[in-house]
Amino acid sequence: MMKKADVTELVYERKRAAGLSWAKIAEMAGLSEVFTTSACLGMNSMPRDNADRLVAALGLPQEAGVVLAEPPTKIFDQSVPTDPCIYRLYEIVGVYGTTLKELIQEKGGDGIMSAIDFEMSVEKVPNEKGDRIELKMSGKFLPYRSW
Amino acid sequence: MMKKADVTELVYERKRAAGLSWAKIAEMAGLSEVFTTSACLGMNSMPRDNADRLVAALGLPQEAGVVLAEPPTKIFDQSVPTDPCIYRLYEIVGVYGTTLKELIQEKGGDGIMSAIDFEMSVEKVPNEKGDRIELKMSGKFLPYRSW
Amino acid sequence: MMKKADVTELVYERKRAAGLSWAKIAEMAGLSEVFTTSACLGMNSMPRDNADRLVAALGLPQEAGVVLAEPPTKIFDQSVPTDPCIYRLYEIVGVYGTTLKELIQEKGGDGIMSAIDFEMSVEKVPNEKGDRIELKMSGKFLPYRSW
Amino acid sequence: MMKKADVTELVYERKRAAGLSWAKIAEMAGLSEVFTTSACLGMNSMPRDNADRLVAALGLPQEAGVVLAEPPTKIFDQSVPTDPCIYRLYEIVGVYGTTLKELIQEKGGDGIMSAIDFEMSVEKVPNEKGDRIELKMSGKFLPYRSW
Amino acid sequence: MMKKADVTELVYERKRAAGLSWAKIAEMAGLSEVFTTSACLGMNSMPRDNADRLVAALGLPQEAGVVLAEPPTKIFDQSVPTDPCIYRLYEIVGVYGTTLKELIQEKGGDGIMSAIDFEMSVEKVPNEKGDRIELKMSGKFLPYRSW
Amino acid sequence: MMKKADVTELVYERKRAAGLSWAKIAEMAGLSEVFTTSACLGMNSMPRDNADRLVAALGLPQEAGVVLAEPPTKIFDQSVPTDPCIYRLYEIVGVYGTTLKELIQEKGGDGIMSAIDFEMSVEKVPNEKGDRIELKMSGKFLPYRSW
Amino acid sequence: MMKKADVTELVYERKRAAGLSWAKIAEMAGLSEVFTTSACLGMNSMPRDNADRLVAALGLPQEAGVVLAEPPTKIFDQSVPTDPCIYRLYEIVGVYGTTLKELIQEKGGDGIMSAIDFEMSVEKVPNEKGDRIELKMSGKFLPYRSW
Amino acid sequence: MMKKADVTELVYERKRAAGLSWAKIAEMAGLSEVFTTSACLGMNSMPRDNADRLVAALGLPQEAGVVLAEPPTKIFDQSVPTDPCIYRLYEIVGVYGTTLKELIQEKGGDGIMSAIDFEMSVEKVPNEKGDRIELKMSGKFLPYRSW
Amino acid sequence: MMKKADVTELVYERKRAAGLSWAKIAEMAGLSEVFTTSACLGMNSMPRDNADRLVAALGLPQEAGVVLAEPPTKIFDQSVPTDPCIYRLYEIVGVYGTTLKELIQEKGGDGIMSAIDFEMSVEKVPNEKGDRIELKMSGKFLPYRSW
Amino acid sequence: MMKKADVTELVYERKRAAGLSWAKIAEMAGLSEVFTTSACLGMNSMPRDNADRLVAALGLPQEAGVVLAEPPTKIFDQSVPTDPCIYRLYEIVGVYGTTLKELIQEKGGDGIMSAIDFEMSVEKVPNEKGDRIELKMSGKFLPYRSW
Repeated sequence: MMKKADVTELVYERKRAAGLSWAKIAEMAGLSEVFTTSACLGMNSMPRDNADRLVAALGLPQEAGVVLAEPPTKIFDQSVPTDPCIYRLYEIVGVYGTTLKELIQEKGGDGIMSAIDFEMSVEKVPNEKGDRIELKMSGKFLPYRSW
Repeated sequence: MMKKADVTELVYERKRAAGLSWAKIAEMAGLSEVFTTSACLGMNSMPRDNADRLVAALGLPQEAGVVLAEPPTKIFDQSVPTDPCIYRLYEIVGVYGTTLKELIQEKGGDGIMSAIDFEMSVEKVPNEKGDRIELKMSGKFLPYRSW
Repeated sequence: MMKKADVTELVYERKRAAGLSWAKIAEMAGLSEVFTTSACLGMNSMPRDNADRLVAALGLPQEAGVVLAEPPTKIFDQSVPTDPCIYRLYEIVGVYGTTLKELIQEKGGDGIMSAIDFEMSVEKVPNEKGDRIELKMSGKFLPYRSW
Repeated sequence: MMKKADVTELVYERKRAAGLSWAKIAEMAGLSEVFTTSACLGMNSMPRDNADRLVAALGLPQEAGVVLAEPPTKIFDQSVPTDPCIYRLYEIVGVYGTTLKELIQEKGGDGIMSAIDFEMSVEKVPNEKGDRIELKMSGKFLPYRSW
Repeated sequence: MMKKADVTELVYERKRAAGLSWAKIAEMAGLSEVFTTSACLGMNSMPRDNADRLVAALGLPQEAGVVLAEPPTKIFDQSVPTDPCIYRLYEIVGVYGTTLKELIQEKGGDGIMSAIDFEMSVEKVPNEKGDRIELKMSGKFLPYRSW
Repeated sequence: MMKKADVTELVYERKRAAGLSWAKIAEMAGLSEVFTTSACLGMNSMPRDNADRLVAALGLPQEAGVVLAEPPTKIFDQSVPTDPCIYRLYEIVGVYGTTLKELIQEKGGDGIMSAIDFEMSVEKVPNEKGDRIELKMSGKFLPYRSW
Repeated sequence: MMKKADVTELVYERKRAAGLSWAKIAEMAGLSEVFTTSACLGMNSMPRDNADRLVAALGLPQEAGVVLAEPPTKIFDQSVPTDPCIYRLYEIVGVYGTTLKELIQEKGGDGIMSAIDFEMSVEKVPNEKGDRIELKMSGKFLPYRSW
Repeated sequence: MMKKADVTELVYERKRAAGLSWAKIAEMAGLSEVFTTSACLGMNSMPRDNADRLVAALGLPQEAGVVLAEPPTKIFDQSVPTDPCIYRLYEIVGVYGTTLKELIQEKGGDGIMSAIDFEMSVEKVPNEKGDRIELKMSGKFLPYRSW
Repeated sequence: MMKKADVTELVYERKRAAGLSWAKIAEMAGLSEVFTTSACLGMNSMPRDNADRLVAALGLPQEAGVVLAEPPTKIFDQSVPTDPCIYRLYEIVGVYGTTLKELIQEKGGDGIMSAIDFEMSVEKVPNEKGDRIELKMSGKFLPYRSW
Repeated sequence: MMKKADVTELVYERKRAAGLSWAKIAEMAGLSEVFTTSACLGMNSMPRDNADRLVAALGLPQEAGVVLAEPPTKIFDQSVPTDPCIYRLYEIVGVYGTTLKELIQEKGGDGIMSAIDFEMSVEKVPNEKGDRIELKMSGKFLPYRSW
């Protein structure tokens, strides 16, 4: 039975063989770059239509469309990530987590920013003093409710 | 000897007593809301001038200015944060970390987004289907170099 | 500066001295039994009005009302709880977690049950073969969205 | 020798191939939806009769009936689950665990809710403001006894 | 407010001062040696009557009786105990745990030995080749039930 | 080269195929039920004679006798066991560990109960209010010595 | 109530004030250097006589003799010790542990070296190529027994 | 490519087949028993000459000599070893670690016993009250130096 | 699809077969010894040109050049390394980490030494009292900035 | 009794009050900057002479000299350091640890770089593209020896 990890492997193979960018793969799927990448890496589920379009465009077996559309089980193997590129994001949560909590809750009352009703983009922006990476995240504010 | 934690306590006391917002405190310091909050919580160091202005505005003892300007030792007590508001940020790193690594490195080559030459803002944006929290992060792209 | 833990201590003192039940304390606050208990234990924030009513009814210092209404930082000291009464709940998550994920996502598509827009009750129900504890939980279904 | 994990794999294959719901599989087994799912995922043992009925209905090898009826060894790989759908349940235990302990023990004296003499259901309930997931749990109250 | 730990401290003081054995303290409480010790160490709750008898016999403040009768929060500070006397018990669980599971479930079907409806005794038994410690444990068999 | 895990697998196969109980297997080996089970699960070494008798009775390859007689490397994969049947034993060590230490050392002076010069039995005992599991453990008392 | 840690503190104070070596303190107690040190650090219990002699010689309060003679609760705060001097011992267990197991069990059959019926000495031995530390450990061989 | 683990497996096979003791294997290698065992288990590297002699004597493929002579990567899978024979050594470090630090540093000043310039032997010594295991360790004293 | 680990294996095979040093391999790649080694071990990415030169010189399949040039995912399996050669480096960070932080930040203000814009060399330097290993590290100073 | 932590606190107080640099404090002690800082932070012991000179220069109580000269117990509270400045050093060990092991052992045979017979310096070096931090470490090469 084909698993999410099998599909990820197949996508990487096509990507290396055809020299595709994630932006191009996202275009095939008809979804954003971040979301498409995360679904191909097994961390999100694509709507079935988009999955089938992507599978057709990449020439993958049809079952891959079913698999891309199934809810994944999201496992993070490392509770503290060691890869430097990912660790920096973890460090930002560590350094700025209490700050963001103060500000989100001052602005909205007791509540959180949803990680489910959520979207994100990432861009590289040219800059004289050295290019910058810009992340934009938008998540629904969910207030706690008393009862 | 006054420590960062003592200053944080003093700021919270003034904040509760005078009903100040972090935006107002940031204005007193002449710095952004996120940075000021993080420095008051002991996770960043303010330039001495801004620290002194803030200390004067809040009526804190002068030594507090020295303390706010010293480099902090950044300790995250919990490697997996339990507070739901902070956990959601951790979850985003878990779910989207490999995705961001793929995209940052596809756009810039092998490298990372700096968490040091870095800035961030947080806003609450009204929305019919429920207000949203928007985070914007900008960090310098640092390429690995071979030698 | 009064902290959540100080208020918890004060409530326990009044409760032991006056022989109050949590149901009675909840009635003073005008909120449900589960929510009131969790707020008194520092794991939720009461609306200011309810907090003030409770503080008045228990004869606590006024500042306690402010504190009960502030968003708490929710720390779980033990990632695996050792108290047998709480461990059984943890065990239920371990044993039935994958099952609930299968069923929630079969019924609603990829998504989760919110722990924020959430409420719960607990009852002891008489039963010939031995009384039973009944927990009812209701959380909003939050679908992941693709973008 | 066939193992629980082999049977789980077989059930998933049949389920994907025939488009079966867990409710339908439960009906084949003659047991509830939650219990059947948990047994198919290797976290409970079915009575031999129900196991055999299910095996026949799904067209699995007979040995699968023996396996489904054997007591499982319940391993939770992650002491803190990372999948967001399961993590929310863990968070509920973290946030409300001390509350439930207070209330269960106030209502019944020193004791616990059994996770063994236990049953549970899960429903998705339509709601104008967004559908809700409702969990009902019922566990026998077990009092500690002194001796 | 007097806590379990305070009462434990008081009992140890009386015990050292008066040279009392745990057997003698158990007699004062009218309960068994193991149960009484565990309650004095804050790991069980005594019935109020027994608690009051013990408090009177030891000359402790009356509030200690209330405290001994309250359900304790059972925290084990070390998930792997380091004290050699306690570690050996942990090692027995590690070495014989899977064996006991096989035998309990072969004898009773899928189920467990309760740690709540449970009692235990400990004796030192003279033996020519070296005295022996004998532990006897008796816990109710709780069968899993399908539903 | 045949390993302990291979022999465990072979014993389970014979046991399932022939519907053997552990009591019956123990009889074949000429040893007690608990010890035989633990040796078949790779957590103890049988005397070579008993191992050979068992291997002959079960029709296993001769090398299995050598393997059953070799000292095992005892690995507990989980420092906190998650299986509910084994967890309850762990919980007993957590809840009663300090109590047993107090009583063993009060009775024998500073020392421990050996987990090496040790034996154990397990029985299911009928009881009107619900059958009970009875464990008896006997370990040599080993006094610390000063030098 | 005086605790082991209080006595350790008192011994260190006398030791620093009077410039005593552990060898000298051991002589006062009438016991070996290693054992005396370990008992003063709270990791062993002295016979009452030796404890009283030591307490008299050091001019400590009499209660200290009672405390030195009580069985300690042996807590190792760090499961992997960080102090380099202690870490090297830990590393030796890591590197040579499996080797020692092979050799002890080849020489004696399945069993262990006792850490209870145990003694040790430590010497610094002059050597031209650099002085050496020599540890000698002697522990009773405890064979596993089948039953 | 042959790895250390492959060579360990080969040595065990020859050892079981020919009934060799480690002492005999050490003789073949022309090195001590402890060192030879540790090198065969992949925790040390033999000088190439000794490795080749051993490989010839055991009839292993020549590449095994290369492998035995390569520096190993020493991985201890368990930071707290569970095997009782190895755990006792770990416990000795836990119980006596601070004692050994006190004595080594009192005798030599601030410094450590090397685990690199190190040797060890293990003997079983007959004794009327029960045979004993004797470990002798000798490591170079390495003083810290100031600069 | 060829992975980093496959290339590492291939390089080790060529290295053992041809008796190559890392210095020689670095020369083939046209890069420094440390950087080349780290890239061959999968912890850095080589510029494509250097990768292709190395692949040609070693006679590896062309795909290996693609793989060597891809950004690696840097996983450290052990958060505390056990190999003694690597542990000593970890220990240096533990012992001198706070010192380096003090000095780096005293010299440069609040900031860090980059591990990305970074290079390092390692030499063995003859010395009468025993040869020495000399590590030189150079990393860009990155100041925190306020905003 | 004055402890290492007390002396550290005193040094920081004098340092803040008098605006001293670590270089100046090192000069007072007559030792290098890195070593002096590490000793003042409680991670090394100064020779008594240097300690007394420093204590006199800073006007600390005489007992501080005794304390600075005592061997410290080196505890690293966090096995993975969270402070970004220290984490980068940890990351370097993670990323380059296997590389350094390869190169040290290729150059010197099986062995390690000592962290005891060790010294280090840190400089900030001006550079047009951004100043750099340069660390130089020198540790004695310690070869493993066979026996």
